[in-house]
Amino acid sequence: MSLQNPIFIPGPTNIPERLRHAMNVPTQDHRAPDFSDTFLPVLADAKKVFGTEDGEVLLFTSSGTGGWEAAISNTLSPGDKVLIARYGMFSHRWIDMCQRHGLDVQVVECAWGTGAPADKFQEILAADTNHEIKALMVTHNETATGVLSDIGAVRSAMDSANHPALLFVDGVSSIACVPFKMDEWGVDIAVAGSQKGFMLATGMAILAVSQKALAAMEQAKLPRTYFDFRDMLKANANGGFPYTPPLNLIYGMRASLDMLFEEGLENVYARHHRLAEGVRQAVNAWGFKLCAVSPDLYSETVSAIYVPEGFNSNELTDHAFNKYGISFGVGLGEMAGRAFRIGHLGSLTEVMVLAGLAAIEMAMVDLNYPITLGQGVTAAQEYYRNN
Amino acid sequence: MSLQNPIFIPGPTNIPERLRHAMNVPTQDHRAPDFSDTFLPVLADAKKVFGTEDGEVLLFTSSGTGGWEAAISNTLSPGDKVLIARYGMFSHRWIDMCQRHGLDVQVVECAWGTGAPADKFQEILAADTNHEIKALMVTHNETATGVLSDIGAVRSAMDSANHPALLFVDGVSSIACVPFKMDEWGVDIAVAGSQKGFMLATGMAILAVSQKALAAMEQAKLPRTYFDFRDMLKANANGGFPYTPPLNLIYGMRASLDMLFEEGLENVYARHHRLAEGVRQAVNAWGFKLCAVSPDLYSETVSAIYVPEGFNSNELTDHAFNKYGISFGVGLGEMAGRAFRIGHLGSLTEVMVLAGLAAIEMAMVDLNYPITLGQGVTAAQEYYRNN
Amino acid sequence: MSLQNPIFIPGPTNIPERLRHAMNVPTQDHRAPDFSDTFLPVLADAKKVFGTEDGEVLLFTSSGTGGWEAAISNTLSPGDKVLIARYGMFSHRWIDMCQRHGLDVQVVECAWGTGAPADKFQEILAADTNHEIKALMVTHNETATGVLSDIGAVRSAMDSANHPALLFVDGVSSIACVPFKMDEWGVDIAVAGSQKGFMLATGMAILAVSQKALAAMEQAKLPRTYFDFRDMLKANANGGFPYTPPLNLIYGMRASLDMLFEEGLENVYARHHRLAEGVRQAVNAWGFKLCAVSPDLYSETVSAIYVPEGFNSNELTDHAFNKYGISFGVGLGEMAGRAFRIGHLGSLTEVMVLAGLAAIEMAMVDLNYPITLGQGVTAAQEYYRNN
Amino acid sequence: MSLQNPIFIPGPTNIPERLRHAMNVPTQDHRAPDFSDTFLPVLADAKKVFGTEDGEVLLFTSSGTGGWEAAISNTLSPGDKVLIARYGMFSHRWIDMCQRHGLDVQVVECAWGTGAPADKFQEILAADTNHEIKALMVTHNETATGVLSDIGAVRSAMDSANHPALLFVDGVSSIACVPFKMDEWGVDIAVAGSQKGFMLATGMAILAVSQKALAAMEQAKLPRTYFDFRDMLKANANGGFPYTPPLNLIYGMRASLDMLFEEGLENVYARHHRLAEGVRQAVNAWGFKLCAVSPDLYSETVSAIYVPEGFNSNELTDHAFNKYGISFGVGLGEMAGRAFRIGHLGSLTEVMVLAGLAAIEMAMVDLNYPITLGQGVTAAQEYYRNN
Repeated sequence: MSLQNPIFIPGPTNIPERLRHAMNVPTQDHRAPDFSDTFLPVLADAKKVFGTEDGEVLLFTSSGTGGWEAAISNTLSPGDKVLIARYGMFSHRWIDMCQRHGLDVQVVECAWGTGAPADKFQEILAADTNHEIKALMVTHNETATGVLSDIGAVRSAMDSANHPALLFVDGVSSIACVPFKMDEWGVDIAVAGSQKGFMLATGMAILAVSQKALAAMEQAKLPRTYFDFRDMLKANANGGFPYTPPLNLIYGMRASLDMLFEEGLENVYARHHRLAEGVRQAVNAWGFKLCAVSPDLYSETVSAIYVPEGFNSNELTDHAFNKYGISFGVGLGEMAGRAFRIGHLGSLTEVMVLAGLAAIEMAMVDLNYPITLGQGVTAAQEYYRNN
Repeated sequence: MSLQNPIFIPGPTNIPERLRHAMNVPTQDHRAPDFSDTFLPVLADAKKVFGTEDGEVLLFTSSGTGGWEAAISNTLSPGDKVLIARYGMFSHRWIDMCQRHGLDVQVVECAWGTGAPADKFQEILAADTNHEIKALMVTHNETATGVLSDIGAVRSAMDSANHPALLFVDGVSSIACVPFKMDEWGVDIAVAGSQKGFMLATGMAILAVSQKALAAMEQAKLPRTYFDFRDMLKANANGGFPYTPPLNLIYGMRASLDMLFEEGLENVYARHHRLAEGVRQAVNAWGFKLCAVSPDLYSETVSAIYVPEGFNSNELTDHAFNKYGISFGVGLGEMAGRAFRIGHLGSLTEVMVLAGLAAIEMAMVDLNYPITLGQGVTAAQEYYRNN
Repeated sequence: MSLQNPIFIPGPTNIPERLRHAMNVPTQDHRAPDFSDTFLPVLADAKKVFGTEDGEVLLFTSSGTGGWEAAISNTLSPGDKVLIARYGMFSHRWIDMCQRHGLDVQVVECAWGTGAPADKFQEILAADTNHEIKALMVTHNETATGVLSDIGAVRSAMDSANHPALLFVDGVSSIACVPFKMDEWGVDIAVAGSQKGFMLATGMAILAVSQKALAAMEQAKLPRTYFDFRDMLKANANGGFPYTPPLNLIYGMRASLDMLFEEGLENVYARHHRLAEGVRQAVNAWGFKLCAVSPDLYSETVSAIYVPEGFNSNELTDHAFNKYGISFGVGLGEMAGRAFRIGHLGSLTEVMVLAGLAAIEMAMVDLNYPITLGQGVTAAQEYYRNN
Repeated sequence: MSLQNPIFIPGPTNIPERLRHAMNVPTQDHRAPDFSDTFLPVLADAKKVFGTEDGEVLLFTSSGTGGWEAAISNTLSPGDKVLIARYGMFSHRWIDMCQRHGLDVQVVECAWGTGAPADKFQEILAADTNHEIKALMVTHNETATGVLSDIGAVRSAMDSANHPALLFVDGVSSIACVPFKMDEWGVDIAVAGSQKGFMLATGMAILAVSQKALAAMEQAKLPRTYFDFRDMLKANANGGFPYTPPLNLIYGMRASLDMLFEEGLENVYARHHRLAEGVRQAVNAWGFKLCAVSPDLYSETVSAIYVPEGFNSNELTDHAFNKYGISFGVGLGEMAGRAFRIGHLGSLTEVMVLAGLAAIEMAMVDLNYPITLGQGVTAAQEYYRNN
């Protein structure tokens, strides 16, 4: 397995040199007087990526899943009712977590490939006149299906229903890749991870928390210590961390923010769109279908692609890995065997994307997929040339 | 602040070159067929460091504190009674965590500087004829006071009382530095962290769990998802991880285990003793006292050293940092201002320890401590020469 | 300019992770007792790559050009007659160097795109009945034109002429990529460089020297100190270096040899052929011509490709660099503006080559080259799939 | 052998993190349009370190020895007379090189431990009324004996004699560590190396060349190609290099210059003095003697220290290496066995120096040297505390 080929899983993403250097530092003392000089600006600057001025950013040593647990355990109490739509693996997992934490989850079942059902949410929330629903949880970018939901529409639905529920958004595979407007959308907790748009190694959940969520924190009765916002906020206020912090990732985060700001967030978003669109041109040229059911749902960070009837997408990704030394995302959950995924987020170039398309084409033809070699690559080349 | 001076905090520790390289890898696919080839042997080999054949090793992306939370939330239910002695900052934190998770904590208050009170435990356990106490939690090496407790004696106490409680041990700052005999001592959960004896960056809790604890897991009612042993065990059985794993730390762990085994665990332990003893010779030469009240409690991984009356240890560590660019551990909790700490664990040489002793001596003389320059260094040199 | 795209210059080549780690080491003491433990096996093992058992390998801190100077200044005297054919930039440079060192160079002018003229050499050598020609110098792989000459044929020519001249071969861009048989071919000095087939950073010339050349060394009157074989051999015999050695490159060389042997030299050569052939399939699909005039001369390490009449290859490589962030070799010397080059040597995968072909196609279409997008990529994909 | 201990050889020096990162870069294209954006400012900025505005800086892929060869072969012709004083290993080597290049060397023999004999030079130059002496070559810092000569005094001697000879200075182990005033001292060629004060890996000679030396270049008849200033200047004028440049070292040089300027050259010099003086305090406390015969000659970058009669310094350095894993400089040439050397140049802290002193003291006491443990360390501590 060559370590030189780019990877096309939807995270962890290809780490650029600068961030590899930034994370590769000798041990430093997190209780030394200078730690806060690095740490506090990281917290402040990260707010820009979330689109918040009013919220607080908190970092936890965990994967994104830990970030979710932090979100619910800090704001809710056993038996609280929450509303979640299930339209993919990650929204499914959030439902599961809530249930295991003793919450009363009202699940809206949606077809995989669709997104957050704002209309349905509005209907349910409007009917919840007692405001028993304490939180609405939405997966912004459903990594399993390559669907990007419209959080602004969800907010409008909540506003139309005049409902005070908290709005939690899983932005693990969207934040720092596509526009995220926490304040404008009225998001109360947004969860991101170090290993996606921030282009770092896995290991740090990055949360932005609204003042409203912080107020809810005071009443929340779910047990928590490791993920307790109160300990974290108290330590952060003194420039520190409540336990040994993930220093390498914090230093990496400093450099990641620098890179994002130097490129310009708008340019980062435009680049993600351009790269994604090239992939979609290839998919179209192959005559394949995306899992996302309509163009307004197409993810800019990952494309989940149905393989033709009679083919097994797991064999495809295994073959690409074994013969060409290159990783693509497997189909997850309902999509297992039926779809493969091309991650196109983080630090990536057109040239790298074309490498991936050329490789998967070879793998498909090896396995007798009904495509012609070069079709997808050419479509993407054409698009990249002109955009 | 020079990054070239070694650090003397009791973790994170000085990372050796080989492990820095091992952690600094391009992104790889944790769902690729070859991930388990690396991952599963890491789990298996780590057992040797814990001294267990019967237990299972589990890795979580978190600090050691997260490892504690995993231990209690996977084995206990709200209202369960647990027994813990408080003799330092870390045993204190464990008590606090249990209380926040709704456990009924019977606290044995001990003077800071003492260790786990086996006799007192025996007395309490013997009196608990209904076996209401579900778990006994012991901090092996109390990092705040530099005290290493005798876990074998605790096991004997439990056996004498014929008590079936689970035995949990915080070995964060002891495991991979001093002998740990999980099976022999009948430890049910031992918690270690990547950033101490394993010499890696911070970010991974390393747990060893006995079959008895795994059985208790089935009945445990505390909510958990991120730290759920069941998800982890199920995923591990398939060679995977229940969420994105901390790949860099897992690759680092492979190299860390290789280093430990190449040096030989017995040699690693002997080195830690030798380095620690040199530091203690210096402390003695200065005429200072360790927080640990008796030699049988002296930690081989960190020495907490009382400063003379009238001096503030925080000023000392700040001065050493600001003038000489070198970090020592501050006094924590009751020891704040009264003691400083020299971490001497992980990848360290005699030469590095002497550098630290020479530096802290200069800082002390700068601040008019009643010592003579070179006293401590010379005592340590003499010891190292002859051992 | 993204550092993530592979480069396609014919050296320095893409450095694999393992070698980047190997070169990135803290300073060590080249006079310490353990230096020779690393150094001497490197010298011994490198012989296998040159195909020599009888020769000696010498390392100099310099580029390949320095290696040439070492070859001539250690074996020849002012006024000595040497025979060289000029068929590209690098053979031209060798002629120039000889002239500047006061040698009497008999130049055989050949068309660029052709290779070493064995027949012509035989004729000249046979006519040199007084054996005034002291050395014949051949560029194995002419990097400027992508021509690989047949050294075995040159040796046959020399043998047929029964001529005792030394045979020097510039193998900078061939050795460790294609078979090199120093002993079988009777090569007296072969020059390689760290930054090509050895996949390291630039900075070390690697020479293999026959016993016959070492004998000539004793009579050679050209002045030299830095490159003096005698100082080097004497120091090497004691496990050392006559001046501060390039430690990072020597440690890198250890790892490079390990990589080459683990893959197997025959497999390395087969990989180079396969990658090169894919590029040639693309060139053919575009309807373009290689500078190399016939298939038996096609280089396995670099393809120099004529652009169509009316196009300027420099604009093409500049455009590819500026718009797509990817480097290809420019046309050198006679080929400036008329050809561009694709380096396909060193640590490279099919996926990476396809990335390069896709990129240069886009650049060509941007500049209105008479090709169709995807043509070359598809031809290479087809080839790689089946080989 | 731990890679964590600092080294105390007089170069290559301890490489700081920042420079290790800077040198550890993916391969880039030295013929790409952006190479000159990095390269040319490096050449310009390096002039400040040499103290020249009028001269040109040239970089060669070689050790410092190659830099010497460049200096003489570019400016002199066979049979030219040059004047050199021999007072150590490196001045000896320069004499040897000149002789091997066919120059007529007038050697002034001086005792090792003394420096450049300005008075004697004046006498000889004044007597050379025909100006047959074409160049005077002086080793600024004689690394073998730890002697720093007064180049200003040499210039005064030349001026007093009204002699037009070129003045060449070997500043390999002085430049970037102590003040160097090329223009003020009228130096015509100064030679430095990447691996000393510039804190980089070994592999690049750094030369500064006056306009007068450049004029001499046009007449020089010694053969050269690899080191030819003319090729280099011509290529540099176009932003390039005449052959593959040592990219990693050039990128490292950029960061090295940044570090030097950020610290401030005057502060760099003051730091070197402070560190050196601490070592000398230790030497004095031990009751040992420096090779340098008088304080005005004491080197700020390396101390060569006589061991007492009856002891073998090679055993000492071997013992320190084998038992304590730390490297010191061995005695060279006349000093072999009689002296060891402590390099204290480059990126170094007080704490690191104290580590070295503590280690060598242990080694000395192990070998029954007549010193008391801690003597030297304490003297250095005292000095560093107060300075």
